[in-house]
Amino acid sequence: MHHVKHLFCTLCHHKHPPDAKTMTCPRCGEKGILDVIYDYERIKAHFNKDTLRKATDRTMWRFAPLMSVSDPPKTRLHVGGTPLYACTRLADTLGLRRLHIKDEGSEPSGSLKDRASAVACAQASAMKRRVLSCSSTGNAASSLAAQAARAGLESVIFVPARAPVGKLNQLAVHGATIVRVDGDYKAAFEMSKTAISKYGWYNRNAAINPHLVEGKKTVLFEIAEQSDFRLPDWIVVSVGDGCTIAGVHKGLKDLLALSMIDSMPRLLGVQSEGCAPFVEAWRTKSDLVEHEEDTLADSIAVGIPRNPRKGLEAVKQTDGAYVSVSDKSILEAMKTLGALEGIFAEPASAASLAGLTKALEDGIIRHDESVCLIHTGNGLKDPDNARKAVEEPPLIKPDERHVVEYLEKRGVI
Amino acid sequence: MHHVKHLFCTLCHHKHPPDAKTMTCPRCGEKGILDVIYDYERIKAHFNKDTLRKATDRTMWRFAPLMSVSDPPKTRLHVGGTPLYACTRLADTLGLRRLHIKDEGSEPSGSLKDRASAVACAQASAMKRRVLSCSSTGNAASSLAAQAARAGLESVIFVPARAPVGKLNQLAVHGATIVRVDGDYKAAFEMSKTAISKYGWYNRNAAINPHLVEGKKTVLFEIAEQSDFRLPDWIVVSVGDGCTIAGVHKGLKDLLALSMIDSMPRLLGVQSEGCAPFVEAWRTKSDLVEHEEDTLADSIAVGIPRNPRKGLEAVKQTDGAYVSVSDKSILEAMKTLGALEGIFAEPASAASLAGLTKALEDGIIRHDESVCLIHTGNGLKDPDNARKAVEEPPLIKPDERHVVEYLEKRGVI
Repeated sequence: MHHVKHLFCTLCHHKHPPDAKTMTCPRCGEKGILDVIYDYERIKAHFNKDTLRKATDRTMWRFAPLMSVSDPPKTRLHVGGTPLYACTRLADTLGLRRLHIKDEGSEPSGSLKDRASAVACAQASAMKRRVLSCSSTGNAASSLAAQAARAGLESVIFVPARAPVGKLNQLAVHGATIVRVDGDYKAAFEMSKTAISKYGWYNRNAAINPHLVEGKKTVLFEIAEQSDFRLPDWIVVSVGDGCTIAGVHKGLKDLLALSMIDSMPRLLGVQSEGCAPFVEAWRTKSDLVEHEEDTLADSIAVGIPRNPRKGLEAVKQTDGAYVSVSDKSILEAMKTLGALEGIFAEPASAASLAGLTKALEDGIIRHDESVCLIHTGNGLKDPDNARKAVEEPPLIKPDERHVVEYLEKRGVI
Repeated sequence: MHHVKHLFCTLCHHKHPPDAKTMTCPRCGEKGILDVIYDYERIKAHFNKDTLRKATDRTMWRFAPLMSVSDPPKTRLHVGGTPLYACTRLADTLGLRRLHIKDEGSEPSGSLKDRASAVACAQASAMKRRVLSCSSTGNAASSLAAQAARAGLESVIFVPARAPVGKLNQLAVHGATIVRVDGDYKAAFEMSKTAISKYGWYNRNAAINPHLVEGKKTVLFEIAEQSDFRLPDWIVVSVGDGCTIAGVHKGLKDLLALSMIDSMPRLLGVQSEGCAPFVEAWRTKSDLVEHEEDTLADSIAVGIPRNPRKGLEAVKQTDGAYVSVSDKSILEAMKTLGALEGIFAEPASAASLAGLTKALEDGIIRHDESVCLIHTGNGLKDPDNARKAVEEPPLIKPDERHVVEYLEKRGVI
């Protein structure tokens, strides 16, 4: 049972009924991204700090009263309930008062995208759709493939020719139908649009589908609950198409509307220098312009973000900021996260730490403030870039003298 | 506060004091593997179904009263509390009455070994040891590197020359000192032994250290608690050096001694045909003999298992069985787990499903029995073998006709 009042077009501001079958505003077309508006007064009776304390569900579905899709499929993977780590050693290194990291690398398919795919599978099941589809080469695709498999649904994934075969294996293991289009990402996306519309498949292209942001926002609810509703001054997250930061922002707005928090943390959106359309639009106070995709952080390499409005508003409305970071600083951040906190992050995820470092240097975030980083994806997803971050260890002759020399050089003995 | 009565030598049956600093029996040397014996009467007051119901810790440390190392390090990764999935679709496919899968792929470093490394870091901290060491190329090493990093400790990992560089990256990201010995596994192991003893490092070589099995057994405690203490007829787990199946067995013995379960499930140990010393010893009722290591399931490719006695007793004492499976059936099982249950398993983990299939065919397990499989390691750890399990998707021309033809061939439309 959901408590949605209406679906609000972020472009023309028209209100659509809560159970409208459309994914975007029929008046504005694909750019008319919808926002889900709730009846908070009704929600308050079912959802507050007391009901949460008594809730036994440890997954993201403990927040079902605050979601637009509120009935999880019976057979599902365990999504959400990930750890929030206090990171004192990393905070000390940065000279920061307090730092937490939300660990989304331990989601079933290894990324925060699992929260969106969980909603997609729930809604597709409820709508009796057998097939779900998206165009992606990355975390959205693997999370969809895994969760559709578990729910007994089918997934059809459109990928461009350049998609690394390594990333396709996980999809194939989950039995996904992989349509490897002999063309670029746009060609794959167009083919997926045609097929989704022709065959009436469930559309799991994140920005277009307003319910997926409602799944992603559960990461913020967990951070809030795990912090006893005392949120930090800043929340830092890397940004690709803008849906994750939009989800975090939506979660904050919900909690504020329910008086479960008193004030808004500020949001820092981090992009890679090689693909930073949000950073540019924010700096120049203008619309988003298509950008090259020249970065090793492939999970945030989105040249044409499909959720520009929500992604920009998240930062504007929270008095936050956007920063861009170099690939070199991302690799450096991977090593820092791994060596100081035991967290293995893929480049797009490590970008958040690189961004925090930059924001401290630039005086955007002060050293006496508190921060939460969202670690969005597991480093195991991208072994090739992990290799770039570290040096290959030398071969040591198998005798004591050489081993001792090496250990002394490393400073272990 | 632990409740250990004594450390019992599995070879000469001598009892050593609970806080003995030695890892193996001083009388028997390295083969004198110790077993931790508890004072169950004292434990009953602190640990029972009631105390468990009230316990708020969701990690493996909720079972601390039943462990030999009971004080976790303050700064640690969230180990344990992994999902237990009811798998009806896979059960139906196998014609099995009931099947559950315990998902250890979602541990912080992606494998069950995290439970052992958590104990190692706890004990090393308590003993004021700054450096932990092991010789391994696989899951033990990466879990140690990650957890030592988080706890502010150092790890030194000895690996043979043939260790795939891909597997070393994760260790390097966590800041481990990797001693890449120009020799085989035995050479690396010998070098590690010498260094550990010379520098007084904490020894995280699993079989030798009796406390690590006590960490691993928490996986069985969780299965029991998640099943409301109604355990299945069989528990299936793949076997390398014998420590994991020994941990499961120890957990069962503990719960039986505490009257928390009424009877023992039977244990099915699964090995790969290319490296099956336990299977052979069990079949021929003789001692373990060194075996070749010719299998793609590298996490269970252990030619000289270092815990032969506990590994054999686990199956003998539970009236269980050992089976071996082909690499081909392991790859097949990877696809089945992925496509039917959304679980991405590395080969050694998928071997458990291949073994269950074989045991059903051979009449070892009956179709009207209930089974729990332990999924020991994440498929993301081994992208090369995932590639072997699936076919490369063909390139499709970017026009509707070709896409439709492909979708029809796949049976999606």
